[in-house]
Amino acid sequence: MSRPARVIALSGGVGGAKLALGLTACLGPDELAILANTADDFEHLGLSISPDLDTVMYTLAGLADPERGWGLAGESWQCMEAMAALGGPDWFRLGDRDLATHLQRSLMLRSGDTLSTVTARLCAALGVRHALLPMSDDPVRTLLTTDRGELAFQAYFVRERCAPRVHALRYEGAASARPNPALLEWLDRGAAVVICPSNPWLSVDPILALGDLRSRLAAASTVAISPIVGGRAIKGPAAALMEQLGLAPSAFEVARHYRGLLRGFVLDRVDAGQADAVRELGMAVLVTDTVMTDVASKQRLAAEVLEFLAGLAA
Amino acid sequence: MSRPARVIALSGGVGGAKLALGLTACLGPDELAILANTADDFEHLGLSISPDLDTVMYTLAGLADPERGWGLAGESWQCMEAMAALGGPDWFRLGDRDLATHLQRSLMLRSGDTLSTVTARLCAALGVRHALLPMSDDPVRTLLTTDRGELAFQAYFVRERCAPRVHALRYEGAASARPNPALLEWLDRGAAVVICPSNPWLSVDPILALGDLRSRLAAASTVAISPIVGGRAIKGPAAALMEQLGLAPSAFEVARHYRGLLRGFVLDRVDAGQADAVRELGMAVLVTDTVMTDVASKQRLAAEVLEFLAGLAA
Repeated sequence: MSRPARVIALSGGVGGAKLALGLTACLGPDELAILANTADDFEHLGLSISPDLDTVMYTLAGLADPERGWGLAGESWQCMEAMAALGGPDWFRLGDRDLATHLQRSLMLRSGDTLSTVTARLCAALGVRHALLPMSDDPVRTLLTTDRGELAFQAYFVRERCAPRVHALRYEGAASARPNPALLEWLDRGAAVVICPSNPWLSVDPILALGDLRSRLAAASTVAISPIVGGRAIKGPAAALMEQLGLAPSAFEVARHYRGLLRGFVLDRVDAGQADAVRELGMAVLVTDTVMTDVASKQRLAAEVLEFLAGLAA
Repeated sequence: MSRPARVIALSGGVGGAKLALGLTACLGPDELAILANTADDFEHLGLSISPDLDTVMYTLAGLADPERGWGLAGESWQCMEAMAALGGPDWFRLGDRDLATHLQRSLMLRSGDTLSTVTARLCAALGVRHALLPMSDDPVRTLLTTDRGELAFQAYFVRERCAPRVHALRYEGAASARPNPALLEWLDRGAAVVICPSNPWLSVDPILALGDLRSRLAAASTVAISPIVGGRAIKGPAAALMEQLGLAPSAFEVARHYRGLLRGFVLDRVDAGQADAVRELGMAVLVTDTVMTDVASKQRLAAEVLEFLAGLAA
């Protein structure tokens, strides 16, 4: 199988983590790094919480809950139950084991470590071999303009369960935040870029909004996998969000959103009819099965994406 | 049964909480308040932890673990297990349910509430009817001069398991810390004082060291119950500590430590032989069964102490 020498995968939470896990089966720690969105990060209960970093970390460590899609397998909820009994804030459910991650992260951040260093230490402790990079060590926060006012991401996503209608999004701090220096090094060394099937507006755009990163990525060999399959999001609010932003929820619209950035786009077979329209945006197209239901399908899709990338670079 | 109109009980952790619980069966919320030592409080994992307040609160709420002697009944330890797996600090074991108390307390303190207010809210949420008062809203910290250098209380007590030999103690911040204003109000209104069978050096002296509180308490009708029975501490390091400080571990030495402060002293029957020597210190003496093994023995001792107090006041 041909494949690029180095790959950076850009990921949000669950969907991105699945493909990232598939990629780790194909590429070694010198060949692959995963960069995760941190614009969903927030302070809660006095703790620094990084949902996407943790979803990727737990997934790569083999500790993620396969049913629930987030958090740790075998998790318990004693602390949140007791918090509810105390009348404390319990709308964002933190599992007992997961709490250790947030306590330890918060301690290390408070002692002056960067989020990159903290993430590397947590990953090392959990046996994650590939580099997991926060998109930035500077704070960036997704804010949604909705019919109930401007909401921080977790308030919209978890507390309000995506019920408010979204008119616009902004990524506070993104313009001045420095992209993770390790990402820039990987790009300097010719890494190709895989944008995982994550929410373009909520998970990927915050990364693209960092400084001049969009043009850096446009200069690299960059492909994206559609998170929209058959007009629906595999997970999360992407399709509903697209409709609220006045877009048809389709793979084509995702590709159009990324135009000027991508050399290639990966569509599911059910959306094969949109391939020509995507090609007209100036992208190569790979049509394949993109729904990752098990380990084998993650690894197969990862291998196909890498082969697609290698063909583009040639 | 005769009893004083108002009583303030001074308490450390487990032993004090037992008698406090007994007293709550004898006196209503208008008649009894419990003041707890806060010189064992510390910051750990970024959380504000108040061990004695929590032991009393959980005991009065009927939530304390009767076997372990600290923490909550039915507690689980998932977070600490995960913390150990992360290589994080796990020497001070915080249960999953207990963590909610510390998270909520820390949140409220960080938002500007006093420890008194926070404690009142936590107690209200857990259904504790009697006022539980931190000895002060200002930080006081017990520091122990040992053969391994000066140690903070929890480092000595939990991390080092009382192994270092103690030469001296000091209560950092005590001289400038203001006693809880509610305590002063209770004293102004003629409350009698019960010093629970808590460690005199580690739990009671920090309270006595606050401003001019010792002389205020000496002016009140104050009695103490010996935490030393038959030359041993019912719980904790009191006896060993007394030896290291050059004192015989006896009820008499406890009484002598409190001389000038107490009108009465409560001895266990096994120490009846020391009653005359204690009387020579200028205190009335009550000899009774002081070991509280069940609810009935807590209530009986509480009732006897209150009757003893009433007799002194008369």
